[in-house]
Amino acid sequence: MSDIKPVRRRASESVEHRTNDERTQSQYQPYKDAAWGFINHWYPALFSEELPEGAVEGIQICGVPIVLRRVDGKIYALKDQCVHRGVRMSAKPMCFNKKTISCWYHGFTFNLDDGKLSTIVANPNDRLIGNTGVTTYPVEEVAGMVFVFVRQDDFPDEDIPPLSHDLPFRFPENSEKFPHPLWPSAPSILDNDAIALGIHRTGQSNWRIACENGFDNAHILVHKDNTIVHALDWVLPLGILPVHEEPIAIVEDEDGPKGLMQWLFTDRWQPVLENEQLGLKIDNLKGRFYRTSVVLPGCLMVENWPEEHVVQYEWYVPITDDMYEYWEVMVRICKSDEDRSKFKYRFDRVYTPLCLHGFNDCDLYAREAMEEFYTDGTGWDDEQLVATDVSPISWRKVASRWNRGIAKPGRGVTNSTKTSSIRMRRLAEGKAPGYFVEKINDVNKF
Amino acid sequence: MSDIKPVRRRASESVEHRTNDERTQSQYQPYKDAAWGFINHWYPALFSEELPEGAVEGIQICGVPIVLRRVDGKIYALKDQCVHRGVRMSAKPMCFNKKTISCWYHGFTFNLDDGKLSTIVANPNDRLIGNTGVTTYPVEEVAGMVFVFVRQDDFPDEDIPPLSHDLPFRFPENSEKFPHPLWPSAPSILDNDAIALGIHRTGQSNWRIACENGFDNAHILVHKDNTIVHALDWVLPLGILPVHEEPIAIVEDEDGPKGLMQWLFTDRWQPVLENEQLGLKIDNLKGRFYRTSVVLPGCLMVENWPEEHVVQYEWYVPITDDMYEYWEVMVRICKSDEDRSKFKYRFDRVYTPLCLHGFNDCDLYAREAMEEFYTDGTGWDDEQLVATDVSPISWRKVASRWNRGIAKPGRGVTNSTKTSSIRMRRLAEGKAPGYFVEKINDVNKF
Amino acid sequence: MSDIKPVRRRASESVEHRTNDERTQSQYQPYKDAAWGFINHWYPALFSEELPEGAVEGIQICGVPIVLRRVDGKIYALKDQCVHRGVRMSAKPMCFNKKTISCWYHGFTFNLDDGKLSTIVANPNDRLIGNTGVTTYPVEEVAGMVFVFVRQDDFPDEDIPPLSHDLPFRFPENSEKFPHPLWPSAPSILDNDAIALGIHRTGQSNWRIACENGFDNAHILVHKDNTIVHALDWVLPLGILPVHEEPIAIVEDEDGPKGLMQWLFTDRWQPVLENEQLGLKIDNLKGRFYRTSVVLPGCLMVENWPEEHVVQYEWYVPITDDMYEYWEVMVRICKSDEDRSKFKYRFDRVYTPLCLHGFNDCDLYAREAMEEFYTDGTGWDDEQLVATDVSPISWRKVASRWNRGIAKPGRGVTNSTKTSSIRMRRLAEGKAPGYFVEKINDVNKF
Repeated sequence: MSDIKPVRRRASESVEHRTNDERTQSQYQPYKDAAWGFINHWYPALFSEELPEGAVEGIQICGVPIVLRRVDGKIYALKDQCVHRGVRMSAKPMCFNKKTISCWYHGFTFNLDDGKLSTIVANPNDRLIGNTGVTTYPVEEVAGMVFVFVRQDDFPDEDIPPLSHDLPFRFPENSEKFPHPLWPSAPSILDNDAIALGIHRTGQSNWRIACENGFDNAHILVHKDNTIVHALDWVLPLGILPVHEEPIAIVEDEDGPKGLMQWLFTDRWQPVLENEQLGLKIDNLKGRFYRTSVVLPGCLMVENWPEEHVVQYEWYVPITDDMYEYWEVMVRICKSDEDRSKFKYRFDRVYTPLCLHGFNDCDLYAREAMEEFYTDGTGWDDEQLVATDVSPISWRKVASRWNRGIAKPGRGVTNSTKTSSIRMRRLAEGKAPGYFVEKINDVNKF
Repeated sequence: MSDIKPVRRRASESVEHRTNDERTQSQYQPYKDAAWGFINHWYPALFSEELPEGAVEGIQICGVPIVLRRVDGKIYALKDQCVHRGVRMSAKPMCFNKKTISCWYHGFTFNLDDGKLSTIVANPNDRLIGNTGVTTYPVEEVAGMVFVFVRQDDFPDEDIPPLSHDLPFRFPENSEKFPHPLWPSAPSILDNDAIALGIHRTGQSNWRIACENGFDNAHILVHKDNTIVHALDWVLPLGILPVHEEPIAIVEDEDGPKGLMQWLFTDRWQPVLENEQLGLKIDNLKGRFYRTSVVLPGCLMVENWPEEHVVQYEWYVPITDDMYEYWEVMVRICKSDEDRSKFKYRFDRVYTPLCLHGFNDCDLYAREAMEEFYTDGTGWDDEQLVATDVSPISWRKVASRWNRGIAKPGRGVTNSTKTSSIRMRRLAEGKAPGYFVEKINDVNKF
Repeated sequence: MSDIKPVRRRASESVEHRTNDERTQSQYQPYKDAAWGFINHWYPALFSEELPEGAVEGIQICGVPIVLRRVDGKIYALKDQCVHRGVRMSAKPMCFNKKTISCWYHGFTFNLDDGKLSTIVANPNDRLIGNTGVTTYPVEEVAGMVFVFVRQDDFPDEDIPPLSHDLPFRFPENSEKFPHPLWPSAPSILDNDAIALGIHRTGQSNWRIACENGFDNAHILVHKDNTIVHALDWVLPLGILPVHEEPIAIVEDEDGPKGLMQWLFTDRWQPVLENEQLGLKIDNLKGRFYRTSVVLPGCLMVENWPEEHVVQYEWYVPITDDMYEYWEVMVRICKSDEDRSKFKYRFDRVYTPLCLHGFNDCDLYAREAMEEFYTDGTGWDDEQLVATDVSPISWRKVASRWNRGIAKPGRGVTNSTKTSSIRMRRLAEGKAPGYFVEKINDVNKF
């Protein structure tokens, strides 16, 4: 073997040049540990219309199985794992009254309001009754969306923060702090008359690499061929670069959401119009002004997108350590039925095909393309980040400081045993792992 | 954080109220260890008609690959893993005479009767010949079913128990011990003129949770919507409760099957007709009297079901730690061809659609619904059992005391490496893991 | 328990009779460790026609992701994992000029010739530029095949051996050493005017058991029903047996390929015409004379097969520890267009259906039939080899001595995490794990 140093190499040698050097990495260790997500946070669970009166649905967030039921308009959420033999109650909903949900297998019946085991259908005097139960999850329903506070079993009711602490920064109340002369104040899902329209679907990658893609300022290349770009005759820059010592504002006010706001389209970020080496040059830049911010537990806001008076929210809700539910939501203030109809029409005809699909599909695939690199830990150690990655690095740090808990790896729940035979059978049937419980719906055909 | 104790909680706090407290659990530790089943027991392998004269089939029980061949009516069973390169001989049967089976790959030829390597097709003088071999498994064929004694490689021939030790209690010889004034004596598969009709299929869950479902007295809810219930105008109770200090008889006679007999439809169990809290009340109870018992290694008997003079047997045969072969068999004494025809007709037209499917399908899905909870061990530790669970708890204890061996986790056999590439390919082809060997049947098309 | 020794048994007792006893096994431990293949060797990557001018393809060998691009006829190969976020560049090829390949996600741009990070599309002054890069792999293109030297990241350029060191022995230069009076000298892929025609496909088993099947002299049984055998009225022996003290020549010349040559169809191997015990007797033996040899890193040569003047090469290229790319290639010297046309015609009409499929399909399935036995290590310890297995044992030893490195288990690369969610989704879509990168080809439909 010769002693000439080869020109090829990987992370070890170039650590010194990485933006995410060892010292930096140590500042976001909790984030690296959060493969199953951050617990004790508010997450979107369903669109309101997915849970009509009387309906029961089962989902999973951060490895926690959750059943939701709507009674007289109000939604209840409980741990969806019977204390008896562990089946998911949502797989075959059975409710004898408006105050309880019963397990379809042996009739264990839980109060909707406090989760206590209140009776067993055929065993009404058992000593377990009143002495056990399932965790309940606070629910908030706003603007057509159902949010659930996903918590550890022993997280106290009185410590539950308001939903607004886990939703994006609001305007105009933050307009002075984060001025945006280029567009009208973004509406909030919490505003009066706010309407949220959107879709959600399962992405087969970890929620963190999904989230980091959401506010990534350096991946414009992925979108250069999108129809919306060309239909609207945009001329995009090659990218944008931070040129200010504080291109990103970290927000960690005691009484509000924790996250970061990016000063895009200000003098803190500069569009890149040329790469001389590659012979690339952009003339007549013409694009859309927007701004992105992200708050715990992983909620993106894109202001002024895809049009004025509309804001796009995204969530990357952890299901397991390798699946997330991807939420793409447009919010607009609609004060009349006509406003609502127009928004809905435009949503169906323009936003859904060109933005939620089209544009966002590129991001969905990009996140999945990272999965193999990150899933065994390689990526978290070996990635070589650069100056533009100030965004994910800032996010990792603020998320590490302010999350309310790191979800433990799921045990005994759907998709936790990766190779379970029941999971294999579903694959053979053409069903990829997903967000919803599979209902037992044809067992009574005889 | 407040110091008020939350109302939500799981197992840890309610252990004291569980029927399966720590002391109880320690009494069935061997059962908890038996994920791959109990070895050195008799198991059903095939229906007689599945192995016609000359046929060769490969199956797997307790992680042991087994090949069966019928010659001049007699069935032989050998370990289905060539000592040379480990392929399954059953994948491409090759037999040069009536006394041997040869491996299709290199011609290693084993005696059917003692498993010895008796020659190698193209290497008839190798020193390995006569000095190695594959384990043989005793076979019994009764009433249209083929049973195999699945044993460890070093289990001696002279210690093999009779098949009857691993089959249900018989009548009338046990009628005094277990009186049943409500119905005629149940026939046994070992009786003269007994006919066994049934089906078998793969369930994607562990054999233990499958078995426990079989004699579970508390899951009537699962069956309340079944067609057979409504077609026959049955009015089921909400459930039945043990009200006697010995609701279940443990049977552990030295010379016979080991298991338990439940005193259903006696004064030891009481139907539950009302759940006041839920406003449920049953009037005019009208059902079928039956009785369930279970013996090692996991054979259920339902007497007087689905009709008089018929008995239903079920087996939950471990394939791996997360798959079992579900056997549903009806037995009746048929002394004439006409009897046999009538039984077969009723089996095809009534029992198969309404009982084996229909009714039992509900159980199959219930067992699979428990799989995720139990597969990583969570369920065995966290389940909160109640008074009606005296049945599974009794079974776990008696099975822990009397099994003849705990099967070791499969190595080097079909489905033992959960993620093997060959398994993945089968999933992509739409084939879920199953009981039978996949035959190499199209390789000679050119 | 009785103290009579059972007749059944497995490896432990028969170790003394095995050809691969403990001492023998210790001589090929490196081979047993090489589940992911031998690294720092030349492997076939693509047929030339699979990479036309301008094309980009991604593959994986020994757990190393590799992207190939052809520019002005010349082929470049680089590690196909962007240093930034680890995505495979080949999934969505993006090249701005003839000297580089850029990552489609964030525009990281690498020199084709030395792998250095030469610019970032929108970040042309980052300090990482020039200070990191991806490993490059030497490429040779001969006779219609593209070979890549798959190396560890720190393997020095100056130590790269010539391609001929990893290709079969050549003739006539070895004719004296290995005489073959029965047929004309086999052509080499390195000869002038050599044409290589063939196919490659993914086999779902480990590369070693695939390779050992290739030169296995004892598996004639597998082929006895093949159409080519019967169409040509061959009468095959039952097998062939080594009868000389050196039935195989080990080749380990300093300056050339390392491997073994089998003295088939000489007095060192004897056809077996009878197995008295099984009543098998071959009359009028009539077959094809051929000879097999194998060299590191796993390249088979079958001389004089399937016809005179043709030679068949096979490679078993490790993709992961449970997948290999199976290469079946026929080589012939074609000095004119007419020669080439005739060879191609015969290849399409005869060799492909009857040899590459047909005959070789039987081998492909045989290799997969061994996978479950070997994948968890059972086979490597428990297999009971015999005299005819002098071939694989010799190969294991020579491979253990002369390989240039044992590939480490893949991390962060395609198919390394066996249960990754993205892999599961592909299975649900009916796609088995394979050799090529799945292109992101429909994300821009909107």
